[in-house]
Amino acid sequence: MAQTKTTNSAISPTRSEDYAEWYQQVVKAADLAESSPVRGCMVIKPWGYALWENIQRELDTLFKATGHRNAYFPLFIPVSFLEKEAEHVEGFAKECAVVTHHRLVQNKDGELIPDPEARLDEPLVVRPTSETIIGAMFAKWIQSYRDLPLLINQWANVVRWELRTRMFLRTSEFLWQEGHTAHETADEAREETRRMLDVYAHFAETFVAIPVLRGLKTDSERFPGAVDTYSIEAMMQDRKALQAGTSHFLGQNFARASEIEFQSREGTEEHVWTTSWGMSTRMIGGLIMTHGDDDGLVLPPRIAPAHAVILPILRGDDTRGQVLDYVDQVAAELRACSFEGRPVLVEIDNREGRGGQKQWEWIKKGIPVRLEIGPRDVERGTVSLARRDRSATEKSERLDVPRAELPMRLVEILGEMQAGLFERAKRFRAENMRPIASREDFFAFFTPRNPEKPEIHGGFAVSPWCGGTACENEIKEALKVTIRCLPIDPVDDGGLDRCVVCGGEKKATAVFAKSY
Amino acid sequence: MAQTKTTNSAISPTRSEDYAEWYQQVVKAADLAESSPVRGCMVIKPWGYALWENIQRELDTLFKATGHRNAYFPLFIPVSFLEKEAEHVEGFAKECAVVTHHRLVQNKDGELIPDPEARLDEPLVVRPTSETIIGAMFAKWIQSYRDLPLLINQWANVVRWELRTRMFLRTSEFLWQEGHTAHETADEAREETRRMLDVYAHFAETFVAIPVLRGLKTDSERFPGAVDTYSIEAMMQDRKALQAGTSHFLGQNFARASEIEFQSREGTEEHVWTTSWGMSTRMIGGLIMTHGDDDGLVLPPRIAPAHAVILPILRGDDTRGQVLDYVDQVAAELRACSFEGRPVLVEIDNREGRGGQKQWEWIKKGIPVRLEIGPRDVERGTVSLARRDRSATEKSERLDVPRAELPMRLVEILGEMQAGLFERAKRFRAENMRPIASREDFFAFFTPRNPEKPEIHGGFAVSPWCGGTACENEIKEALKVTIRCLPIDPVDDGGLDRCVVCGGEKKATAVFAKSY
Repeated sequence: MAQTKTTNSAISPTRSEDYAEWYQQVVKAADLAESSPVRGCMVIKPWGYALWENIQRELDTLFKATGHRNAYFPLFIPVSFLEKEAEHVEGFAKECAVVTHHRLVQNKDGELIPDPEARLDEPLVVRPTSETIIGAMFAKWIQSYRDLPLLINQWANVVRWELRTRMFLRTSEFLWQEGHTAHETADEAREETRRMLDVYAHFAETFVAIPVLRGLKTDSERFPGAVDTYSIEAMMQDRKALQAGTSHFLGQNFARASEIEFQSREGTEEHVWTTSWGMSTRMIGGLIMTHGDDDGLVLPPRIAPAHAVILPILRGDDTRGQVLDYVDQVAAELRACSFEGRPVLVEIDNREGRGGQKQWEWIKKGIPVRLEIGPRDVERGTVSLARRDRSATEKSERLDVPRAELPMRLVEILGEMQAGLFERAKRFRAENMRPIASREDFFAFFTPRNPEKPEIHGGFAVSPWCGGTACENEIKEALKVTIRCLPIDPVDDGGLDRCVVCGGEKKATAVFAKSY
Repeated sequence: MAQTKTTNSAISPTRSEDYAEWYQQVVKAADLAESSPVRGCMVIKPWGYALWENIQRELDTLFKATGHRNAYFPLFIPVSFLEKEAEHVEGFAKECAVVTHHRLVQNKDGELIPDPEARLDEPLVVRPTSETIIGAMFAKWIQSYRDLPLLINQWANVVRWELRTRMFLRTSEFLWQEGHTAHETADEAREETRRMLDVYAHFAETFVAIPVLRGLKTDSERFPGAVDTYSIEAMMQDRKALQAGTSHFLGQNFARASEIEFQSREGTEEHVWTTSWGMSTRMIGGLIMTHGDDDGLVLPPRIAPAHAVILPILRGDDTRGQVLDYVDQVAAELRACSFEGRPVLVEIDNREGRGGQKQWEWIKKGIPVRLEIGPRDVERGTVSLARRDRSATEKSERLDVPRAELPMRLVEILGEMQAGLFERAKRFRAENMRPIASREDFFAFFTPRNPEKPEIHGGFAVSPWCGGTACENEIKEALKVTIRCLPIDPVDDGGLDRCVVCGGEKKATAVFAKSY
């Protein structure tokens, strides 16, 4: 690979120079989020939060269309609830925020300390996930098979104390939704688990333009307390995998822990079968790393907080009023149109300041389309259009669109961009995912070409696996590679049949990768 | 007052029998919420949460229309941040959840305890409100007058450790929105404070059909750290006041505490002027207590999770298919209409079970309109319509509406109900609010007629006040009466001029009441 040097890009370093730092710089340049004075917690800024609101709206619609209803459960979970499921407490006790007091008081030095008189009898943890507290309520709500299925979703904040954090990808507090459902039979619960996995895959691909692999997690990557965990896995531009959503078949584990029983059609008392599934603000990290480029964020139109910005070019007072009127008219014409069921969202950037600088701000924020309107456009009845998925500096990439054609043309372009981003990401994944048969090739695939850039490696290896945890552990230690999933989606496994690590008999085809 | 006895109502006790217990029973019968195993925290069930989603959507639209943008800030606040504003810490230190550890560990008895090795250097409180943490971010974001005004809103959960809790009205955890804004001048910040107070009043009256008084709080009821606190105050059916939203002018108090400085137009370094304002799930308590009756919840159509329910009457297999087809057609025709900018929302209750019982479930849940459809309706091309604001048992209150007229008629009725609920509540308030001049009348007004029903008293007294805290304290101790606000909205104060408590010179006209 040729020596890369800083090119004329808006984000420094570029992806190839330092991918991890590029990511942080895009988050900053796009004004999505920043770290807070509270360890491990981020502040989601308006542009980033608007993305989350769009994710929420679209997911929520999909959840409601599949029969789920929203509810809200307590932030705090008594420690005794967490303890009810052995694997569960094992998985979460190590990283939770513990509330021990309900009052502060000044000590004799005037310092504010937890009041020893206000110590809680039982400590509470801030929910890392809500299976146990929701299970306790389900046990009250469910008496008979007539109460099933019970299909609930919660939008909430959760806390998992993380030592190493990265904005959107891994923070101590994050926002998510958690679905929790209870069913009469194992089959129905399994069906629900798969249905919601499919909803996540559909959402990721259709709205966020991120191609994903659906698959089953191995035992070592299962959710603590689950029977089966499924996930959607996406490939980032550094070829690492991002788990972007999970759906768990919990069997009767949590039903037994929380005593969720029902009278069956046959009149017997049975434990329900439960599922849970979640998607979080992590999806925004996936969006950035799938579509972002060396000029900053690139937003898929269907999830963008705004589709287009109009930048008026104001030259002297005599044309100023004319330009601003024209801008308002163009904005009104665009806002009257709709793109994929939402009104076209147009920002007008009337702030003072240099036009070039404002252009670059919007490029970095990833807005799909920039529209410049100056006195000459008013005269000619045109609008100068630039797309975020084309070069920002090449003049030939700008289109002069007659105003009358603009609404139709814009909607068309948004559709092209949505499809184009998805296709580009699929191509990237196809180029960096392949069947690998031999242990030697496998190690070579995951060994960085350049020791200074450990992040650049092969990508996703599709290889046979013997089903042994020993093989998983070996490659995890040697290469930091894990099995991302046993894919449900068809993948080219090359028809191979011996475990790529130990040469033993193949149990399953697995997708191996480094991951976030 | 005549001896009341249990009448033929769906909620027992009735409002006049035991108002506080009636409230709890409505919350339960309408399936809005229930208490959780976590002390002071409630679970908001789907019907209650759908109400909150509607409140959120409408308020959010009003906030965005006034230029605000949503963002998200950390759940945790370091104790040192809380300490920055003296009144603020004084106000909140006594009732906050304190996080002291970030891990649980088993002790030698196998019990799970906060890990002594994982004690936090600085305790964190779960946000009771976010002025201090948002202030710290504003200090980073604001450099110059060009960055102002900064208009931010957050939808979030907050925790204030409460000893006596009541669902929706006072819970340790609750959901709310908190607006936080920064401005160049005191005037602009005052204008914002009043603008958002007006937004709250408009929302309460237009959407929730609750008439409110806008006014200024006295010093003793101010938000800790504010210069001025404004509120909207509503009268519940037990004549007590409910503070349903507050808007604070914070002056430069928090700007100084958090060092939020900006370069002014004149080039000097100045502190910004800030505001904050909030409305919470408490509004749902206000809705219940304003509109509910002895049959349960009554929902204003503009905020109802559904406008109408269709109850098919199925008699034997031969007409079953016909009825269900007809039901689907009617539902489709209604859903194609819109009421106040939202599609008409129709539920179809196809559950097994007795028709009468199902009717009463929907009555208790407060759905505005119930539509019954049986074989005879199919034959005649009609639908049998019942309104929640009319008697549930009088046959004459049922309308047989020709199917073709139903969509228009339903939309008309929803409009009538929305206006009718508001008018009824306004009438109730007018009947129970009056100018009171003498100390004797004042004490009589607030003394229960029946010692067994301390909740029944006069209502709102509009009286002159000398401005003295001593007078406030005296009536608070003697009568549990406080000044709800110094009203901005015109009230009939009878032209009185001596303080109703001490007879001293009048400083202001005040609205006095017992309150939640």
